[in-house]
Amino acid sequence: SQASAASATTYPRVRSLDRALTALPDANLALVSIPGEQAAPEIDRLLDKDLHVFVFSDNLAVDDEVRLKHKARERGLLMMGPDCGTGSLGGLPLAFTNIVTPGSIGIVGASGTGTQEVMVQIDRAGGGVSQAIGLGGRDLSEKVGAVTCLQALRALDADPGTSVITLVSKPPAPSVRETVLDVCQELATPVVAILLGEQPAVEVDGNVHFAATLDEAARLAVSLAGTVTDEEAPAVELAPGQRTITGLFCGGTLTSEAAILLSRGLGVPTDAEHADGYMLHHDGHTVIDLGDDAYTQGRPHPMIDPSLRAQMIRDAFDDRQLAVLLLDVVTGFGSHEDPAGAIVGAIEAGREAARADGREVVVVASVCGTEKDPQPLSEQTRTLQEAGVVVLGSNAAATRYALGVVSRTGERRTPAEIPEPTRRLVSEAPRVVNVGLASFADTLQERGGQVVQYTWSPLAGGNARLQRILAALS
Amino acid sequence: SQASAASATTYPRVRSLDRALTALPDANLALVSIPGEQAAPEIDRLLDKDLHVFVFSDNLAVDDEVRLKHKARERGLLMMGPDCGTGSLGGLPLAFTNIVTPGSIGIVGASGTGTQEVMVQIDRAGGGVSQAIGLGGRDLSEKVGAVTCLQALRALDADPGTSVITLVSKPPAPSVRETVLDVCQELATPVVAILLGEQPAVEVDGNVHFAATLDEAARLAVSLAGTVTDEEAPAVELAPGQRTITGLFCGGTLTSEAAILLSRGLGVPTDAEHADGYMLHHDGHTVIDLGDDAYTQGRPHPMIDPSLRAQMIRDAFDDRQLAVLLLDVVTGFGSHEDPAGAIVGAIEAGREAARADGREVVVVASVCGTEKDPQPLSEQTRTLQEAGVVVLGSNAAATRYALGVVSRTGERRTPAEIPEPTRRLVSEAPRVVNVGLASFADTLQERGGQVVQYTWSPLAGGNARLQRILAALS
Repeated sequence: SQASAASATTYPRVRSLDRALTALPDANLALVSIPGEQAAPEIDRLLDKDLHVFVFSDNLAVDDEVRLKHKARERGLLMMGPDCGTGSLGGLPLAFTNIVTPGSIGIVGASGTGTQEVMVQIDRAGGGVSQAIGLGGRDLSEKVGAVTCLQALRALDADPGTSVITLVSKPPAPSVRETVLDVCQELATPVVAILLGEQPAVEVDGNVHFAATLDEAARLAVSLAGTVTDEEAPAVELAPGQRTITGLFCGGTLTSEAAILLSRGLGVPTDAEHADGYMLHHDGHTVIDLGDDAYTQGRPHPMIDPSLRAQMIRDAFDDRQLAVLLLDVVTGFGSHEDPAGAIVGAIEAGREAARADGREVVVVASVCGTEKDPQPLSEQTRTLQEAGVVVLGSNAAATRYALGVVSRTGERRTPAEIPEPTRRLVSEAPRVVNVGLASFADTLQERGGQVVQYTWSPLAGGNARLQRILAALS
Repeated sequence: SQASAASATTYPRVRSLDRALTALPDANLALVSIPGEQAAPEIDRLLDKDLHVFVFSDNLAVDDEVRLKHKARERGLLMMGPDCGTGSLGGLPLAFTNIVTPGSIGIVGASGTGTQEVMVQIDRAGGGVSQAIGLGGRDLSEKVGAVTCLQALRALDADPGTSVITLVSKPPAPSVRETVLDVCQELATPVVAILLGEQPAVEVDGNVHFAATLDEAARLAVSLAGTVTDEEAPAVELAPGQRTITGLFCGGTLTSEAAILLSRGLGVPTDAEHADGYMLHHDGHTVIDLGDDAYTQGRPHPMIDPSLRAQMIRDAFDDRQLAVLLLDVVTGFGSHEDPAGAIVGAIEAGREAARADGREVVVVASVCGTEKDPQPLSEQTRTLQEAGVVVLGSNAAATRYALGVVSRTGERRTPAEIPEPTRRLVSEAPRVVNVGLASFADTLQERGGQVVQYTWSPLAGGNARLQRILAALS
């Protein structure tokens, strides 16, 4: 394997930046862990060589941070840090990092262990991570103005391998908060935001899903992206006109939960009247409670008799605007003996009719049930999956997944152009010049990365007065 | 087994209430599924016989509901419903119900599939359910005034088998909301509230943890109660003076998340100064970031060198007020090769010293790491568990668990007295008179319950005019 081949030889060790670039000519990232008080001139030189810079060092002055981040941005480069503890680019771990399953969730993090916890919890929830870009703890301050954050958001938005972005930060300065969230709303990729310590005013606001804790942020991201298993399924290509969500539900409260989340995510009102069981009916989107009196006069509740819902499922596919069909499947005592089996025929018939019309539709469901129910969860899930249904772990997760599909594939604009060096940073494994702690180079090599160790020594033996004189002369 | 013995014989079927009570003399619950328009007089009679009533029927007039609920309360009885779709008492399923793992989470639900989804998600998150008490969808309206809700909350608070209560409802009428939340604050048992459609203003407010979605409510409840495996561990008995939480952390953001949740749950401020890494320091509670500069001058970060934290862990046990010690364990590249192993000695030494002083301390941790890390998650978890540490699935979950321990065992008052019939309803398997749909009796018998089928016929053959005349004569 690449990893063991790389481990067999040891990486080059050099004592100057020029030699480092001779040893690794296509290097595009520097990992800096030298003392922060002396890092600024070195970072300047690294940017001059068109390297992205990941600054693990702390104690870099904030004025230097501002200047260097602006310089980096002008050159299409990212300066991550200072005091940046965690990152993962092109599958390679940077500094303090957990090894998580690869997937389609990108992370933009202004906090080290916050990013680690989100990565770990994504992995634990069955999801996977594409990239984790660290910002340093001050990036969203008034003074720095989220320079790297905005670059990172746009970079992940343009990354075809990223389907959901998670932003992890302390509450930003108010003016910065507004700028960052405005950019999040414009992205073609759904965003989960955790601004730790700030209680979200809404669960979802348009393109942005808010979490109050790190584990919740991870779970929201996985519900939007689907698990790694869901991601592996062939992607459904939607036609440009396909933009709406239809929810056909058995459970009243499940309908209500879906309608609330969809109304906030789509920016449309819920239906206060509830006439004919409609809990949301706006701009082509519909969410219907088929347990409403309008549908149960002279016929049993749809949890018992699925025939009316099956017919409505079949008919839903005839709507050429339909992008996602959202369903609940409720098992347990009292419910139909095979509620999944009772609707998959309608799903398959509908799918066939849509295909004949040149369309695919995403069908997503959750099963409200357990393995101990008379209709075991695993069997109900398998029945649905065999009919091409994406099965999420809860009703809220299925609803968010539907929102994710529509926001990624709807009539949103395509991602903005990003500079070529930025595009390459998020699309290839980086080639790294490690400036400082050799253990970081060891880890990169162990994971199959290309790295050169640049053993840095302070200018003039670390003598500050001599350094100032030399700087004045240069 | 009891279940198969019960299935072997079929339950008695009778045509009058008196005969039902002759057949099942210690019946204490009636399950009513006759037409709601005609149910009120029957419910009156059932209450007169000192039976709790679970009303599956809908279309019961709201005035009848109010009158009957007050009558029930006067007699120490619960009237659950009308239009109550789901319940689980003493492990027996009532009406439409999923079979979930038994455990210590009690549910009070004003919505049918909402309660089902919460039960199912608790099961999926590894937790278990003690009781699920349905209220009917109108119980928290202005008119009904949450009569059954308040009875159910107090009943579960007094139930030794319930360690966390989850309240599931649509947003209540404003005046009712205040009454219900005031009672929740007074309980000796922590409460998770999901008021579906109302965005929580805080994650935690004293004794009440707020969720925005049904799955989140379930996960919060499991984090407060622990999983079924955690529940099976011998309960730690705390002395009356043990009331504080100490958090000793490696990760800065993990410290911050814990401090925020604890400050809201304990009603104390976070520490804005962060002097000496203190993120919370109030009324004996402390949360410290050992990665703060105050602790890393001339020594490596605690993620690399655990020795200082180990010493502080050992010393924490000498505080006689300490109830819960809260820890993070961060693995991955860059971290210590065995961070759990590096602190368990200190935990065991501290525990021993506390025991010599006649005290037990609850130690709770989460591991920020994956199975793929150089320090595999399963091994780190096992190391901690073998030292008697309760390991939760995330930092937020571990923090909530700490809050749960303190709110259950701290200086809160003991639960209020409840009427004897109510106490028996939540402490024994109910003996059921099933009035209406025979399939509900079949299910009860299948699950090992004692049930008699009372096949109800409308008075005067259902003739409304004759019924009024008979009522006037009686």
